[in-house]
Amino acid sequence: MAKQLLGKEVTAALNEKIKANVAELQGKGVNPTLCIIRVGENPSDISYERGATKRCETLGVACEKILLPEDVSQEELLATIDKVNKDDSIHGVLLFRPLPKHLDQAVIENALAPEKDVDCMTDLSMSGVFTGKKIGFPPCTPQACMEILDHYGIDCTGKKAVVIGRSLVVGKPAAMMLVKKNATVTICHTRTVDMPSVAREADIIIVAAGRAGVVGAEYVKEGQTIIDVGINVNAEGKLCGDVDYAAVEPIVDAITPVPGGVGSVTTSVLVGHVVEAAMRKVNA
Amino acid sequence: MAKQLLGKEVTAALNEKIKANVAELQGKGVNPTLCIIRVGENPSDISYERGATKRCETLGVACEKILLPEDVSQEELLATIDKVNKDDSIHGVLLFRPLPKHLDQAVIENALAPEKDVDCMTDLSMSGVFTGKKIGFPPCTPQACMEILDHYGIDCTGKKAVVIGRSLVVGKPAAMMLVKKNATVTICHTRTVDMPSVAREADIIIVAAGRAGVVGAEYVKEGQTIIDVGINVNAEGKLCGDVDYAAVEPIVDAITPVPGGVGSVTTSVLVGHVVEAAMRKVNA
Repeated sequence: MAKQLLGKEVTAALNEKIKANVAELQGKGVNPTLCIIRVGENPSDISYERGATKRCETLGVACEKILLPEDVSQEELLATIDKVNKDDSIHGVLLFRPLPKHLDQAVIENALAPEKDVDCMTDLSMSGVFTGKKIGFPPCTPQACMEILDHYGIDCTGKKAVVIGRSLVVGKPAAMMLVKKNATVTICHTRTVDMPSVAREADIIIVAAGRAGVVGAEYVKEGQTIIDVGINVNAEGKLCGDVDYAAVEPIVDAITPVPGGVGSVTTSVLVGHVVEAAMRKVNA
Repeated sequence: MAKQLLGKEVTAALNEKIKANVAELQGKGVNPTLCIIRVGENPSDISYERGATKRCETLGVACEKILLPEDVSQEELLATIDKVNKDDSIHGVLLFRPLPKHLDQAVIENALAPEKDVDCMTDLSMSGVFTGKKIGFPPCTPQACMEILDHYGIDCTGKKAVVIGRSLVVGKPAAMMLVKKNATVTICHTRTVDMPSVAREADIIIVAAGRAGVVGAEYVKEGQTIIDVGINVNAEGKLCGDVDYAAVEPIVDAITPVPGGVGSVTTSVLVGHVVEAAMRKVNA
């Protein structure tokens, strides 16, 4: 039976570190603050907002909200971003996307100051993920994967890691982060030939295929660590990952469940970014 | 015996395309122009400048030069970059680096407008390489590798590609470009365990290890394509690549020589970027 890599254990440890940093900042008179900008009333945005707000409260991070109507103009949204960029009391900004179609999303995303870009929405933050420079912050989901590996003491140096998926939100950044951790990294995707045989060579597999049950028993072998980024709803209406958990779990060494794995770590990573943004500013 | 992938053949084909684009631009009254900014009298800068100037001449691209003294101030260099950014007659800029130590290279590099960044010196150009967006231009050397693959009709889709080296100038960008071409890409580096066995699995190997003779017979097998990015000087004072050519060439299907391979394509790629920059501007 595989060891379960539990999001709640990782989150608990992360939260302790975040709280210590918040206390240090408050000792210096700084109140780390997240600003959430929401356009319209998308239920999934509202649900994520609720989670982030709660997590901020628990960790002593202030959370301001700017709610704009669905038909907000490009000018007004840009003016709002300009205002938060210039507001020294705001350290990190979360803007829900996709934006309504009448707005030029690329322009709006890149209007945010990279040093406040705690959710990796600007091109400059993406550059930081690629180059390893501290410009902005990496996307929360692949960083949550790294936090899980770190928390459970899974050393990547010299290991073979396979990333399934090449998206900008997970696959590519995860690959860059694993290279930085000295893993030998293989990026697989829909055009990969005989993916099971590639995956079986890995020590660590990060699955971000975006489809339920893609990774079955034929992808895995003894000794592997499986990080499942997928969040899907199965035929019975239950949450499930991209990995066929029932088939894979008995074979491998360690695996993240869904729910209760990667997804449960991302909010703490986001709030951690806000606190780090405040610390970078204090130490600049 | 392996097929030789010759830089001169790739360059000849590239140059024809570039000339056609130059003619089209000139027909619209646009003279594509490269501006070379050189600080000091570094012999290798001067040598590269000579090559680029000559290539520009052959291809009908104008080449302006701004020569600054070794002790130029940060302010003067930034003012120079600001001037070329604003100069509508200049389409691409090449600034030699490393800069003298008294200058803040990161600040200076990022002062250049990304749309004129034909040598991938800004963080935004790097972001474009990672995200696949058309921001700036990719580094010339990994693009030269792709031009060689394209010219010789080596389709990457579904192929296994191994990149040896994780530098920002070659390894990482080459990996991203190969992913875009639908290859299953593995990034190896100094911390990779048993690199020969990883390399032997590949259909295509791009070698950017930065050390002579790293890749010997034990890294390769029949049917492979080897692209050697290395430029080193061996014990006899001769130019050589990172691949032990004499050992590898008899085994593989196709290989780039050094000299006469990747290195001989980069100047055309650079000039091609200048022309593309001019075309993007015309079509904007």
